[in-house]
Amino acid sequence: MATDTNKFQAIISHCKEYGFIFPSSEIYDGLSAVYDYGQWGSELKKNIRDYWWKSMTQMHENIVGIDAAIFMHPTTWKASGHVDNFSDPMIDNKDSKKRYRVDHLIEGHAEALEKEGKKEEADALIAAMEALLAKDDMAGLKLLIEDNKIKCSISGTSNWTEVRQFNLMFSTQLGSVAEDANEIYLRPETAQGIFVNFLNVQKTGRMKIPFGIAQVGKAFRNEIVARQFVFRMREFEQMEMQFFIRPGTEDQWYAYWKEERLKWHLSLGISPEKYRYHDHVKLAHYAKAACDIEYEFPIGFKEVEGIHSRGDFDLSQHQKFSKKKLQYFDTEINQNYIPYVIETSIGLDRTILLILSEAYTEEDLSTPEKQDSRVVLKFPPKLAPIKLAILPLTKKDGLPEIARQIMDECKSQFYCFYEEKDTIGKRYRRMDALGTPFCVTVDHQTKEDNTVTIRYRDTMQQERIPLNKIMEIVQKQIN
Amino acid sequence: MATDTNKFQAIISHCKEYGFIFPSSEIYDGLSAVYDYGQWGSELKKNIRDYWWKSMTQMHENIVGIDAAIFMHPTTWKASGHVDNFSDPMIDNKDSKKRYRVDHLIEGHAEALEKEGKKEEADALIAAMEALLAKDDMAGLKLLIEDNKIKCSISGTSNWTEVRQFNLMFSTQLGSVAEDANEIYLRPETAQGIFVNFLNVQKTGRMKIPFGIAQVGKAFRNEIVARQFVFRMREFEQMEMQFFIRPGTEDQWYAYWKEERLKWHLSLGISPEKYRYHDHVKLAHYAKAACDIEYEFPIGFKEVEGIHSRGDFDLSQHQKFSKKKLQYFDTEINQNYIPYVIETSIGLDRTILLILSEAYTEEDLSTPEKQDSRVVLKFPPKLAPIKLAILPLTKKDGLPEIARQIMDECKSQFYCFYEEKDTIGKRYRRMDALGTPFCVTVDHQTKEDNTVTIRYRDTMQQERIPLNKIMEIVQKQIN
Repeated sequence: MATDTNKFQAIISHCKEYGFIFPSSEIYDGLSAVYDYGQWGSELKKNIRDYWWKSMTQMHENIVGIDAAIFMHPTTWKASGHVDNFSDPMIDNKDSKKRYRVDHLIEGHAEALEKEGKKEEADALIAAMEALLAKDDMAGLKLLIEDNKIKCSISGTSNWTEVRQFNLMFSTQLGSVAEDANEIYLRPETAQGIFVNFLNVQKTGRMKIPFGIAQVGKAFRNEIVARQFVFRMREFEQMEMQFFIRPGTEDQWYAYWKEERLKWHLSLGISPEKYRYHDHVKLAHYAKAACDIEYEFPIGFKEVEGIHSRGDFDLSQHQKFSKKKLQYFDTEINQNYIPYVIETSIGLDRTILLILSEAYTEEDLSTPEKQDSRVVLKFPPKLAPIKLAILPLTKKDGLPEIARQIMDECKSQFYCFYEEKDTIGKRYRRMDALGTPFCVTVDHQTKEDNTVTIRYRDTMQQERIPLNKIMEIVQKQIN
Repeated sequence: MATDTNKFQAIISHCKEYGFIFPSSEIYDGLSAVYDYGQWGSELKKNIRDYWWKSMTQMHENIVGIDAAIFMHPTTWKASGHVDNFSDPMIDNKDSKKRYRVDHLIEGHAEALEKEGKKEEADALIAAMEALLAKDDMAGLKLLIEDNKIKCSISGTSNWTEVRQFNLMFSTQLGSVAEDANEIYLRPETAQGIFVNFLNVQKTGRMKIPFGIAQVGKAFRNEIVARQFVFRMREFEQMEMQFFIRPGTEDQWYAYWKEERLKWHLSLGISPEKYRYHDHVKLAHYAKAACDIEYEFPIGFKEVEGIHSRGDFDLSQHQKFSKKKLQYFDTEINQNYIPYVIETSIGLDRTILLILSEAYTEEDLSTPEKQDSRVVLKFPPKLAPIKLAILPLTKKDGLPEIARQIMDECKSQFYCFYEEKDTIGKRYRRMDALGTPFCVTVDHQTKEDNTVTIRYRDTMQQERIPLNKIMEIVQKQIN
């Protein structure tokens, strides 16, 4: 087994080699922190998105979906606080001209201290940083960097500029007449699309509190340090749900959704030990309570989903800025109020990385006679891009014809893959590398007794089954 | 039945009232030519997108999907011709300061002429315009406007500026350091994401020509006159497929895909009379042949899909600009070549409007005794947002409990809706308005004999069926 960093690199290479994820615009040497999903990555992504969507909307009577535009009225982002607050403190090294996010620079230094055995010093540094960040004390952050003699890794100097705030939203101009063009932003989160549509959905859908609105879509952040493959990208996809509740019930619903969302992760068959909650001490301006669900990626425990108790911050702000009453009349208690909100927000790209990290397995299959190994992606069958590979043992003797008949019967039910090139062993290994849970091989015996060999990805076991059982076996595992 | 313009307005109102489509950021008085899909519009959109995706990828062995980013390397758009050519000639009226797309201004005048009975004059005007557009003759276009005494509808004058080209791409800055920020574009089409990934997909997927790559995703165009509801938006979604072929086979594949794509439309049960082909005479710079599939919207026959024979234009351009060989070695003829491309490109939002136009029906149900009518959306069952409504006749006597049992059994299979408010008649009408093909009503007899009443949306017929037949009946219709 590779070490963890090696495993992470191995996953990135595997994703490229097998058509899961490519660097964006690679023929032009790529675009920093942007990725394209290839033929199998796009199916995996779709399967994860569909699974989330179905489990949040179709399976919950009181949650409906929406699909709001990326372009929103610019006042939305004044109301949400993004125009004023959605920024990171940055500092430039004057010698190398390299710009750093202040928190990343300090955290890097703390990690180095810890490696030198100076854990207490490292902890104190992080605590000092968090206190200064909480007070937006830019001068204090600069002093902290200087006092700790933190150096630029490129120039090796401590010749720093002042610390300044940089907004992370992308902007563009709407309308073709330069003079009257509106500056608008690419949404940095999907949540606001839900808030501005709150009344429309509540009224036209006759929704009764408590109820939720779910959305999947692209969001954009001009991250200065975007790294770690698809973990932090400038263009990414969020799956968010805002749950509208009666004020005073927020603690109970916050606890409910924390638990419920973790259950969703575990429903994918992942061990609970790979997860932990991380309760936020420092809260964002809109939050009353916040918690991350962290997964143990090969690069360590990292946030994959956030649960946030947002109070009435967002609806109140939109009411204030739009001058439209965003209230709900609660017939049970005969009161008008601005609902409180519990948010569940999961990154689709991070979930893909999670599923890949969980699935990626290097197996030593050596025997005393022969060294052997395989790479296999042990996807949950319902998320696998290809469900069934259909493989005629040879290209002749009528075997391809039978294989194609199976293909024609099964392909409208689930994603099938037909392959007749290469030895059967090579084809199995290729299907392992793509994470295909089932292969069926058509051979000469098939012509005699209408049976095929089914081969299971994880166990590599093979068994003989009747042709007419194929669909049932696969369908049972993917539903 | 309403007139056609009335029908179009009625659809727009219906979409808003019943949670299909809202103006974007409506609480801030909307954002021009941008729309949000509400709770039922988002399900309808997803169902159409999934139907296209499945029919193009899963059902075709030689077509795979990708999901490329909206952000692409800026050289992509130099190579594709969009930086130089993706612009519309515009003209400003100096008195009203209003800007017009030249072709819209002239077409508007031609329409007015035609209404006055001057059809020949109108045809001549259009012909003259097309000739000038083909030559990019801006001065000629201005003369044409002046010679025809075309006036601004606001100022009423002919006091025009020169005609100028305006690029339709949205731009933004990538990277947070202003000095080294890159100007990038929001993709104006999804096609280029396929072309730049051609080699990655072909090699990692071991694809053999002929093969296709499909993609669904957002695209952005800064249209000066964006109008007609979701028909022409500034942010919209495309479903595109690029089919890579051996040079010399383009006519045969072009004909094949023209026919195949029309068949797809007809597979939704729509009458062939609602469609027509429109072959382009004036071709875009990349095209060898091009054809629109037009559907008869309430506002007339309009393009919903385009089939384009693009030759090797795109791959050649990317090869030239990237200096990477974008070639394919064809083992059958032992030759290296840049493949030719047939493109099928359909607007998802337009398809939604098509399905809504086709489904929207006002029915007079009056009897001699009583005036009555209904609005019903006759969606193909597989595209309907809600497949089955489950309605207890009353809120008591244990009927809701039985209804919820049905709900629990069915909801993991397809989208169900539970409703116990209002009279049963009102609930049926509401389900008609949402396009729900099946309603089952649980009544007192259900407790005795385990049967329910199923009510069919289109015929309004009702019949008594056993509880345990519900799932089968619905599933048969939606698959």
